[in-house]
Amino acid sequence: METVLSSATRQVSIGGQNPFCIIGERINPTGRKVFQEQLRNGDLSRIEVDVAEQVAGGAMMLDVNMGAPLCDEAELMTRAVTLIESQCDLPLCLDSSIIEVLEAGLAAYHGKALVNSVTAEDERLDAILPLVARHGAAVIALPNDEEEIPEEPARRLELARKIVDVATARYGIPLEDVVFDPLAMPVGADTTLVLRTLETIALLRDELGVNMTLGASNVSFGMPDRGAIGAAFLPMAIASGLTSAIMDARSAQLVQAVKAADLLTDRDPWGAQWIAAHRARQAATAS
Amino acid sequence: METVLSSATRQVSIGGQNPFCIIGERINPTGRKVFQEQLRNGDLSRIEVDVAEQVAGGAMMLDVNMGAPLCDEAELMTRAVTLIESQCDLPLCLDSSIIEVLEAGLAAYHGKALVNSVTAEDERLDAILPLVARHGAAVIALPNDEEEIPEEPARRLELARKIVDVATARYGIPLEDVVFDPLAMPVGADTTLVLRTLETIALLRDELGVNMTLGASNVSFGMPDRGAIGAAFLPMAIASGLTSAIMDARSAQLVQAVKAADLLTDRDPWGAQWIAAHRARQAATAS
Repeated sequence: METVLSSATRQVSIGGQNPFCIIGERINPTGRKVFQEQLRNGDLSRIEVDVAEQVAGGAMMLDVNMGAPLCDEAELMTRAVTLIESQCDLPLCLDSSIIEVLEAGLAAYHGKALVNSVTAEDERLDAILPLVARHGAAVIALPNDEEEIPEEPARRLELARKIVDVATARYGIPLEDVVFDPLAMPVGADTTLVLRTLETIALLRDELGVNMTLGASNVSFGMPDRGAIGAAFLPMAIASGLTSAIMDARSAQLVQAVKAADLLTDRDPWGAQWIAAHRARQAATAS
Repeated sequence: METVLSSATRQVSIGGQNPFCIIGERINPTGRKVFQEQLRNGDLSRIEVDVAEQVAGGAMMLDVNMGAPLCDEAELMTRAVTLIESQCDLPLCLDSSIIEVLEAGLAAYHGKALVNSVTAEDERLDAILPLVARHGAAVIALPNDEEEIPEEPARRLELARKIVDVATARYGIPLEDVVFDPLAMPVGADTTLVLRTLETIALLRDELGVNMTLGASNVSFGMPDRGAIGAAFLPMAIASGLTSAIMDARSAQLVQAVKAADLLTDRDPWGAQWIAAHRARQAATAS
């Protein structure tokens, strides 16, 4: 199953035999005081730096989150979308918990966006999915509801099925345009949680055949040597069926782990990309 | 299921909730001309260097192969076993295609060794398994026979079942003392082969519940940036059920990938080992 996203001029597909989709994660002021202050002053110049770094690192889509305190997030999202569209041609993932912000981003965007995100809560489904359907967008879906973030993979599958039913039957969104987030939890909080995430990924792949994405940095939250944890986690998740991640493309270690996983799962025919990347690094070192 | 190996003074278990078992691979003259020349002259001093490096890197067992051209391999194996026993207390994996060499190594060794290896060929089974049984050793078993190295995971499972039957029913070797090698092939030869290996690992885990090991460096043979390929492959294989590998413990990248996989698969309770390793590296850098 392939999920096709697009900017005005470029298509990117998640899943099928395509390489793992790296969604660059840094265009987000969370936890960044200087960036937040700049956004409060209407200064979006930091976005250009972040976009350039994610593109240089190998991002294939970009996640855009403008959730800074005391800001008009909808206006910032509109301006950010337009700015990024002028800077690069990667498809965007519009990231907000606020409906109006998603609406503003979708209205400004010239392409097929990935909306981040909806849950299995009835109220969220009925607010966000009509928006996704109207704009012909795709959506990231989290299998949790009003009552719980379930630990059990089987319960996560149940909630995923509910989302599929509502999205396809009630709102006419094609199944391939629902990308699931299997809920990646910090291993530092409980060392059994990642196994549940891996089981969920395998279950969603086997039972629904859907594409999946997750926030790769969640897993290593609170632990030292986070890059090495992420670089082991992503190949494990890819072996279980993960087809995309929201991750920091500035990390050569993470990106190389993903490219190695592409090679090992037959998504890099003849190893051509792997060998080309090796030669590019050699040339960069020599010059 | 746990496979327990031992030296004269130390036990190591493969599988169950134990950390992934790193079997150090360098005590082997294959492809090393100077080392081969030294062995021909009866000089075993290089072994001491290799053992020290594997131990320092985190090896939990050591693979010993004395297959150098124009040497008395059985005599070298006897001397190597005695030398290594005097130097460290790690259990040994005795590695040779020659029955007499395995016999000499087992006779010299004071502990429960892992014999590397037997195949599903009738002649090999009936030559090696009696030796394994008589010495109370464990054995690495490869699911290929006279006719083929099968590509299909289902056929590899069939041959694995044959080995299990012969080992347990005919020779009284406990199932936990048969450690399977799922046949790791070079991804550079055919980019579909690693997926077959991963499927085989999952199948042997689900159907037989056995422990498994493999030569980790095979997978990246012939490709550039081999460390990065191995560091992605091992977590994938561990997620599928691999419990051990014969690998070069000098590679910090490979060892860290294995330790991260231990953390992520709940084989490092509270992340205590991961955090301790981080602190040890910090202390080493600071001093």
